[in-house]
Amino acid sequence: MQRVLSSQLAAHVGQRVRIAGWTHRRRVLKSVSFLIVRDRAGLAQVVVSTPGALDGFGEETVVGVVGTVIANPAAPGGVELTEPVIELLSEPVRELPVELFRPELGVTLPTLLDHAAVTLRHPSRQRVFELSAAAIRGFRRVLDAQGYTEVCTPKIVGSATESGASVFKVDYFGGTAYLAQSPQFYKQTMVGVFERVYEIGPVFRAEPHDTSRHLAEYVSLDVELGFIQDHREVMAVLRDVVAGMIEEAAGLGFELPVVPVEIPVLHFAEALKIAGADPGELDLAPAHERAIGEWGLREHGSDFVFVEGYPTLKRAFYTHPEPGQAPYSRGFDLLFRGLELVSGAQRLHKYADYVATLAERGEDVAPYESYLEVFRLGMPPHGGFAIGLERFVMQLIGATNIREVTLFPRDLHRVTP
Amino acid sequence: MQRVLSSQLAAHVGQRVRIAGWTHRRRVLKSVSFLIVRDRAGLAQVVVSTPGALDGFGEETVVGVVGTVIANPAAPGGVELTEPVIELLSEPVRELPVELFRPELGVTLPTLLDHAAVTLRHPSRQRVFELSAAAIRGFRRVLDAQGYTEVCTPKIVGSATESGASVFKVDYFGGTAYLAQSPQFYKQTMVGVFERVYEIGPVFRAEPHDTSRHLAEYVSLDVELGFIQDHREVMAVLRDVVAGMIEEAAGLGFELPVVPVEIPVLHFAEALKIAGADPGELDLAPAHERAIGEWGLREHGSDFVFVEGYPTLKRAFYTHPEPGQAPYSRGFDLLFRGLELVSGAQRLHKYADYVATLAERGEDVAPYESYLEVFRLGMPPHGGFAIGLERFVMQLIGATNIREVTLFPRDLHRVTP
Repeated sequence: MQRVLSSQLAAHVGQRVRIAGWTHRRRVLKSVSFLIVRDRAGLAQVVVSTPGALDGFGEETVVGVVGTVIANPAAPGGVELTEPVIELLSEPVRELPVELFRPELGVTLPTLLDHAAVTLRHPSRQRVFELSAAAIRGFRRVLDAQGYTEVCTPKIVGSATESGASVFKVDYFGGTAYLAQSPQFYKQTMVGVFERVYEIGPVFRAEPHDTSRHLAEYVSLDVELGFIQDHREVMAVLRDVVAGMIEEAAGLGFELPVVPVEIPVLHFAEALKIAGADPGELDLAPAHERAIGEWGLREHGSDFVFVEGYPTLKRAFYTHPEPGQAPYSRGFDLLFRGLELVSGAQRLHKYADYVATLAERGEDVAPYESYLEVFRLGMPPHGGFAIGLERFVMQLIGATNIREVTLFPRDLHRVTP
Repeated sequence: MQRVLSSQLAAHVGQRVRIAGWTHRRRVLKSVSFLIVRDRAGLAQVVVSTPGALDGFGEETVVGVVGTVIANPAAPGGVELTEPVIELLSEPVRELPVELFRPELGVTLPTLLDHAAVTLRHPSRQRVFELSAAAIRGFRRVLDAQGYTEVCTPKIVGSATESGASVFKVDYFGGTAYLAQSPQFYKQTMVGVFERVYEIGPVFRAEPHDTSRHLAEYVSLDVELGFIQDHREVMAVLRDVVAGMIEEAAGLGFELPVVPVEIPVLHFAEALKIAGADPGELDLAPAHERAIGEWGLREHGSDFVFVEGYPTLKRAFYTHPEPGQAPYSRGFDLLFRGLELVSGAQRLHKYADYVATLAERGEDVAPYESYLEVFRLGMPPHGGFAIGLERFVMQLIGATNIREVTLFPRDLHRVTP
């Protein structure tokens, strides 16, 4: 018999149907018992009259149930299954590390992560990762509609291009290679091919930070586009992308922010003023960012604020300076409720500028040679941004630890499960 | 002035417009010169009357051109730009490792790969990676429509689960970790959460194969689904996915195969017979696969043939045996024109079966413990498959070397660019 999902039962009142799912909860009363079955669509109630029928297996055992659908306004979805024939589809589960039927999991972070295989089944956990999936879907939808091409660039790289200290080493057929910290140069190179590209993939950071906001491996949503006038065009794309990511997540039960059509933009110098910071500061401290977040809400009713013009020296060396306006650059951050959500910039696109910038910073050109070749071969003005998926989701739903929004997090202390 | 794409010029006859792109070709004649500009939409012809105007820069230099659009049936797209004002948007390019304006690149594989940053710009190269992007798009479209959830699982893992010899070691904060050879156990685990999942991501193989079909890193398109009756349901999903991937690639100028609504299915034993092989064989040799490919075309007019029931011993240990039909399993291959395109199977879903199978094979359970926990916690019957993106594209377009369909390939000898 074809399986019916719990959400489809109401359309089958009076019929014999088959459902299948996990034993979410057994409630054994004196004269009758209830079996709550969980499937990917929700919960279904099965009324069991045979004494002892639910004794042989515990919660999370996978069952198939053939039964008759009857209306019962008190049951989940307004229907329940009666006269059931229950078949075990998994081994009977005897012991569980957590109780999934409770409305809140109520376990410590280590338990949550050590037993991810089962804690992820809790509805409160499921919807976090449905949100992640929706965010990725929204990201792609917006970019596909604007003529972007998805690319897949290598994660094993031959040289450690962004500060050797924070890169993982790989034993590569007896030699040494590294795990890519970002697809930065590859996506720039691909602007030379497709003009507009995006990539969704893992990036790796060997930074020994033991904080609630750092992971050793995370998912980076990367965008790069060519033939721009300046970074403002990149910001416009980012605005549409973030709006699409949030739109796609509607209906999952989270309270989500509204992305204004025009996100307010502050120049870095102005941002310092608003935050009451020393005008000589070269970066924004967390307290400054919070003050700017408050300003955005107060003055523009916006949870989002763009800050542009960060001092060039505080940004990655490939950031394009603002011509004639030293020390400012064409780098920007998107703040969400006073926290950095996304960074982006117009990039340098001329080889001579790369060489000069590396020299100014006292960095050797040699390790970058293979990546920089492309800038001698005709690159248009371009820019882009990268969204850290887990950090995005974390901020969107106000999670306190990034590990709560990562399926199987990797950090200084954790490489399993 | 807003930029117009080459493909939009015909709508602007009589107007002054601005195009931008790469100097694809300069053709300097006695009285007039032509500048062919390449952008992401195609080529545009610019008529240059000023002598010497094209002398200062070479092919691949990025230019912006403001000009008047006039109709000329002899020009690409039926229009050309006259009275141009040319602006250089990149440094002038002087030397190129290849000539991109020729219809065929005509370079050796090492040149193609060493100079990928520029060879990828050739139209013949671009469309290969447009095909890759389309294939990924089709993969997602089909699965999204069938209620699958996209997941992102870690690529750094704590134990080498599928034969230690072929796994890359990572120096992980002073300890040893490994690069995931596949998301196999993670996607199975996630069936316990979402029932139907897919993942698109890199996988890593340290196999020292130096062949035209092996990469050290490739993109794996992974699918796993629960509550199946048997592997036939997995094969039905695979059929739809492959059809969607190919449909999405229409219009890129490749001659693409038709995926029949019902792909012919052969049992392994029958396949051996058709191939004229010894009935005691435990696997199909390349010559056998070719014979089966010919059979599919001859008997069913199909480029695709499913072979099911491969002997359990020759498949991964998590493959579900065909009950009561030893030595056969519920593992299958999809052959395309006589070559394996995709492998899949129903998997074991009971912990006891995993333990028994590992014991039979003389393998220790210990390194798998962390992954196998989930099978004690209620897992439904499930199965799935993995499509190697590069190998898929390679076979689809008949490329002779997998490196030709990989943006920046990684192999025994190559970890750059």
